[in-house]
Amino acid sequence: MSAVPYLALVASAAALALAYYFAQVVLAADEGNDLMKEIGEAIREGAMAFLRREYQWVSAFVAVMFVVLLVVPIDGRPAASFAYLMGAVLSSIAGFVGMRIATAANTRTANAARQGAAEALPLAFKGGAVMGFTVAGLALLGITLNYLMWVKWFGVDDAFQVVAAFGLGASSIALFARIGGGIFTKAADVGGDLVGKVEAGIPEDDPRNPATIADSVGDNVGDVAGMGADLFESYAGAIVAPIVLISLLAGGTFISGTGKILDAGDAEALLMYPILIGALGMIASIIGALMTRGKEGQSLSTQLHTGQYVAMGLTVVFSVIGTLLLFNGAENPDGGDLVEKPIWLAITIIVGLLGGWAIGFVSEYFTSEHYRPVQSIAEQAETGPATVTIEGIAQGKLSTLPSVSIVVLMIGLSYWMGGAAFGDAGSEIGLFGVSLAAIGMLSVTGVIVAVDAYGPIADNAGGIAEMAHLPPEVREVTDSLDALGNTTAAVAKGFAVGSAAVTALALFKSFSLTAGSEVNLDINDTAVTIGLFLGAMTPFIFAALTMASVGRAAQAMIVEVRRQFAEIPGLREGKEGVKPDSRRCVDISTQAALKEMVAPGLLAVLVPLIIGFIDVNALGGFLAGAVVTGFMIAIYMANSGGAWDNAKKYIEAGAHGGKGTDAHSAAVVGDTIGDPFKDTSGPAMNILIKVMTIVSLVFVPAFI
Amino acid sequence: MSAVPYLALVASAAALALAYYFAQVVLAADEGNDLMKEIGEAIREGAMAFLRREYQWVSAFVAVMFVVLLVVPIDGRPAASFAYLMGAVLSSIAGFVGMRIATAANTRTANAARQGAAEALPLAFKGGAVMGFTVAGLALLGITLNYLMWVKWFGVDDAFQVVAAFGLGASSIALFARIGGGIFTKAADVGGDLVGKVEAGIPEDDPRNPATIADSVGDNVGDVAGMGADLFESYAGAIVAPIVLISLLAGGTFISGTGKILDAGDAEALLMYPILIGALGMIASIIGALMTRGKEGQSLSTQLHTGQYVAMGLTVVFSVIGTLLLFNGAENPDGGDLVEKPIWLAITIIVGLLGGWAIGFVSEYFTSEHYRPVQSIAEQAETGPATVTIEGIAQGKLSTLPSVSIVVLMIGLSYWMGGAAFGDAGSEIGLFGVSLAAIGMLSVTGVIVAVDAYGPIADNAGGIAEMAHLPPEVREVTDSLDALGNTTAAVAKGFAVGSAAVTALALFKSFSLTAGSEVNLDINDTAVTIGLFLGAMTPFIFAALTMASVGRAAQAMIVEVRRQFAEIPGLREGKEGVKPDSRRCVDISTQAALKEMVAPGLLAVLVPLIIGFIDVNALGGFLAGAVVTGFMIAIYMANSGGAWDNAKKYIEAGAHGGKGTDAHSAAVVGDTIGDPFKDTSGPAMNILIKVMTIVSLVFVPAFI
Repeated sequence: MSAVPYLALVASAAALALAYYFAQVVLAADEGNDLMKEIGEAIREGAMAFLRREYQWVSAFVAVMFVVLLVVPIDGRPAASFAYLMGAVLSSIAGFVGMRIATAANTRTANAARQGAAEALPLAFKGGAVMGFTVAGLALLGITLNYLMWVKWFGVDDAFQVVAAFGLGASSIALFARIGGGIFTKAADVGGDLVGKVEAGIPEDDPRNPATIADSVGDNVGDVAGMGADLFESYAGAIVAPIVLISLLAGGTFISGTGKILDAGDAEALLMYPILIGALGMIASIIGALMTRGKEGQSLSTQLHTGQYVAMGLTVVFSVIGTLLLFNGAENPDGGDLVEKPIWLAITIIVGLLGGWAIGFVSEYFTSEHYRPVQSIAEQAETGPATVTIEGIAQGKLSTLPSVSIVVLMIGLSYWMGGAAFGDAGSEIGLFGVSLAAIGMLSVTGVIVAVDAYGPIADNAGGIAEMAHLPPEVREVTDSLDALGNTTAAVAKGFAVGSAAVTALALFKSFSLTAGSEVNLDINDTAVTIGLFLGAMTPFIFAALTMASVGRAAQAMIVEVRRQFAEIPGLREGKEGVKPDSRRCVDISTQAALKEMVAPGLLAVLVPLIIGFIDVNALGGFLAGAVVTGFMIAIYMANSGGAWDNAKKYIEAGAHGGKGTDAHSAAVVGDTIGDPFKDTSGPAMNILIKVMTIVSLVFVPAFI
Repeated sequence: MSAVPYLALVASAAALALAYYFAQVVLAADEGNDLMKEIGEAIREGAMAFLRREYQWVSAFVAVMFVVLLVVPIDGRPAASFAYLMGAVLSSIAGFVGMRIATAANTRTANAARQGAAEALPLAFKGGAVMGFTVAGLALLGITLNYLMWVKWFGVDDAFQVVAAFGLGASSIALFARIGGGIFTKAADVGGDLVGKVEAGIPEDDPRNPATIADSVGDNVGDVAGMGADLFESYAGAIVAPIVLISLLAGGTFISGTGKILDAGDAEALLMYPILIGALGMIASIIGALMTRGKEGQSLSTQLHTGQYVAMGLTVVFSVIGTLLLFNGAENPDGGDLVEKPIWLAITIIVGLLGGWAIGFVSEYFTSEHYRPVQSIAEQAETGPATVTIEGIAQGKLSTLPSVSIVVLMIGLSYWMGGAAFGDAGSEIGLFGVSLAAIGMLSVTGVIVAVDAYGPIADNAGGIAEMAHLPPEVREVTDSLDALGNTTAAVAKGFAVGSAAVTALALFKSFSLTAGSEVNLDINDTAVTIGLFLGAMTPFIFAALTMASVGRAAQAMIVEVRRQFAEIPGLREGKEGVKPDSRRCVDISTQAALKEMVAPGLLAVLVPLIIGFIDVNALGGFLAGAVVTGFMIAIYMANSGGAWDNAKKYIEAGAHGGKGTDAHSAAVVGDTIGDPFKDTSGPAMNILIKVMTIVSLVFVPAFI
């Protein structure tokens, strides 16, 4: 049992080593001709410049929070402050490294696409995998180190608060990275498209459009760095939540009186368990990633998904073995079995894994052109943009039905099984099972992020091929890679949103356990009711703020692009040697994103603090309202957005008359509306609900 | 005190007499030339045909529910069944009468507009007032009669269940009337506009468009009959909720052991109180309505609103006096004052009235072209339909912030004051105060509905003027009346949605009081959590279903209109004597609406029943989730829709280049998207949350 943290350290180290190895492979590949190098350089520079400035701002925020955590009377000081800092720093490093390599992989994938998909796919995947394994490796490393350091070596009391603070650090970065990145990318995308395609009549990714480089930069800072920080946070949160929960639950269940489980010998196995599953899933993911390679004669989808399925299959096997080994012989203080039927815990992990996959499939169903929802949106394009929009909104909202059903089923099952493991199905200890479902879901984060980050790399490779005037067959190769990326992104979003709901729930339970008898969460309590209303409102306001930010930033971009087309002679006509001032556009997106991310970011952190200091019951209602409503909006916005995107692509591939028809124009409108839905407001919602819950959890001792 | 029910009967009778008198005035007015008569006849016929067929379907539903209520072991049988039937029948009568007169007022208002606004305005107002006072008069009459009959004369036990069943009857009608009417009107509107304006290039309300008559019919069945049933339900619910609540609360508070307050002499005054306020508000409304008349030299807005302000002012005065008189000398069984400080109850009524007005003002702020939100949507029209849509969604979601703040403030204040009245601020009895706030809000329902129904009458008068080729200055008069109607509708929607939240809350408390110790509503209970997720999901699904219904029905309309333009020679060119087959279009809307209203309607009734029979705790969570999320979506959809509508009108009035520009086309797209938002899904949400709560309340004895 005491070997578990060291196994986790080894697994983390292996993940980081794999990331390093893949990074070397990517960097060693040929970057292509001078023009490609130049474009690649511009994108990398813009992305890094944004990240640096974003981190500057976020550093200030983190510094303030660091001090606040030192000063405010929460539990586990000062260790919690340092854990917070570590969560924030590790998440930042993961984002930085991942994006650095992703931007390098863009041009190299474009260049490799000249030799065909079998050359290009592994490169794009490896580029994404660097992010994936840096994220997962650093998160597992951080949690394990924190645990070893504060709990084992320094013997800090309230260890769970320290672990929670690590999660809060990760959330802080994720929050700003998602919002900032989301606004950057959509300002460039929406703004550039509206002037370029609509007014100037030039196609997407055309080098004449001054916003094209900013758009590519946006893909990297939004879809790669933002998503990486998001999944760092999800993964860390998923491991943190059951550790915190079991520390609190076990207080009453195992060692009545002491309030802590850590003194109880064998019971420590329960604290180790989430870390063990993380380590085993990591090893499975590494094996899976190594088995992903380009093979002639295999479909691209098979090539890309093999690794994922291998990782999932191995995780199942490893979890069963690991669980049985860990709890074999572990005893209660009274001499009974610590866990009566440990196999139920392993099955909970598996249920989580399958649940994540199922939610991913729902996302795919609602956003892939192979199924009815996207096709019906495309049909509605025949009667114009209004009907496209109505149908897209309806389909997105409808997609909450299967997604919620899966989550609810998963919660019910894992609650029952968590209890059954302790021979006490239906009791409060079942909550431990619920929290484990999220770990099951995210145990293979390494490959999930790899496959997800693959998407924007392929997308960007296509853009670079276009900008560098590579032959059309290269673009065809990158397009085939990109199309695949669209579905993989849907699956990753499914994992992210599904785990967010379950993790937030586990954190919420921890919050109310920490508050103990100081909090009354009966819905009939008027303060709880008021909290529910305010909580349900917050995701709407958050969505409104982020969408309006994209609108404003896009407007600024439109003004600049129009100016350049008007003032730079020969630009619109594509005269030899005339270049747009791309840097200005990157600057505009950067400034807009930094400015606009502050208000929604602070909202997420300050609102629960304000409510908590006024009334803890109201805060409980607030969190519950925010979690359930935020979950609905996250699914609805992500799926509506994805569906509009693919309805447009479906028409572009020839349905309903194809490009240039009225139906196509209508679908383009839907796609543009969907941009902030799926890439700004929707994904940020996942983090919103977790940030608010974890802030409340960490600060609850100060509230009461 | 025992005079209160008789006062209410007198007030109801006076309201019905006023409605009868106004109806005679309307019918006596000149209907105009033959063409106008013909058009008016076609609209009336279509509207009545739809209502008859809708009522046929709803009768079947009501009959089934009647039997179910007889068979299922709920409390208060068989009286509850008959009360249910009475609620349903009275609501149907109110809808029927109101719409009959509204359709008559359309043509007569158009005709009166030839002499100017001062002639036309009072006629349109009186047409709306018939609906308003029939609705309020029959609702108050029904509740009072039920109370007298079952409680006083027959001495039925569980009287509160009987009163609740009356509310359920009203809700059943409202649910189907809102959904069916909403789908009808938007199918005709969206479908007709898309083909007419976009494809055939003919303006709105043009008689050549085969869907024009169906559109006018839709305004009557959706905006008049649907809204009337809605407010019948809201008004009845607002009076029912505190009666039910005080019966339950008082069980523990005043006469421990018996579980009922009815035996306790003076305490009956509390049961009478909601009915008294209803009666006093009715008298104030009648006076207000009689003071609304067209005056030369006064602005239209002043003319229309005078009656409303008079009614509100008088209600304040009457409430204070009535409250002090009613509770003066009323004693507890132990000899103390029944209500320690009755003035607090009167102030709660006033807070409710002001709260409703404030939410109405928020709606006006977000949907009137005089304020920033609509102007910024119009600005975004310059960059096309996508940015219009994004901004409209953002503004609608943002509007939840002030609306929720007001509701939350109102809940907090009325809870405190309700307790303070009994000398026990902060205790459970404060919930009585919360339920009173809704009555305060709706006490002036008569004038509110009058002013609201005025809007579609003026709108239709404009359509008739257009179709009947009346001179343009007539259209100008009706347009000025219509523009005023847009803001008044926003205010009425504010009252409807604000009262829905508070009423649903009061009914929810009654539900949990009825369930008693059988239900645990702690958010930490896993069943409650699962219920919260399912509850928060339901309004999203409901919105999706109703929006998709409008999309499908509009598509059918489009096919038919296209067919007529293609197959009827000379129609598009407007050849003399060539007429479209309007009746076919009315039929299509009718059939589509009847078919499409079934699924969402049954969803609302069956889902709480299914969940309730499985787990009552889950049902509690479900209701809480549905109420808070449904409230957000109701506000968001109503305000986004209204804002798009007025952004289009703002541009048509000359902003951003006016009609015919790209900005105008973009705004038309926004307006079309907003159609199902504001007239189908949004308003039906209010009823959804109340139907689900009241179904749960009535059936709770069967669940446990």
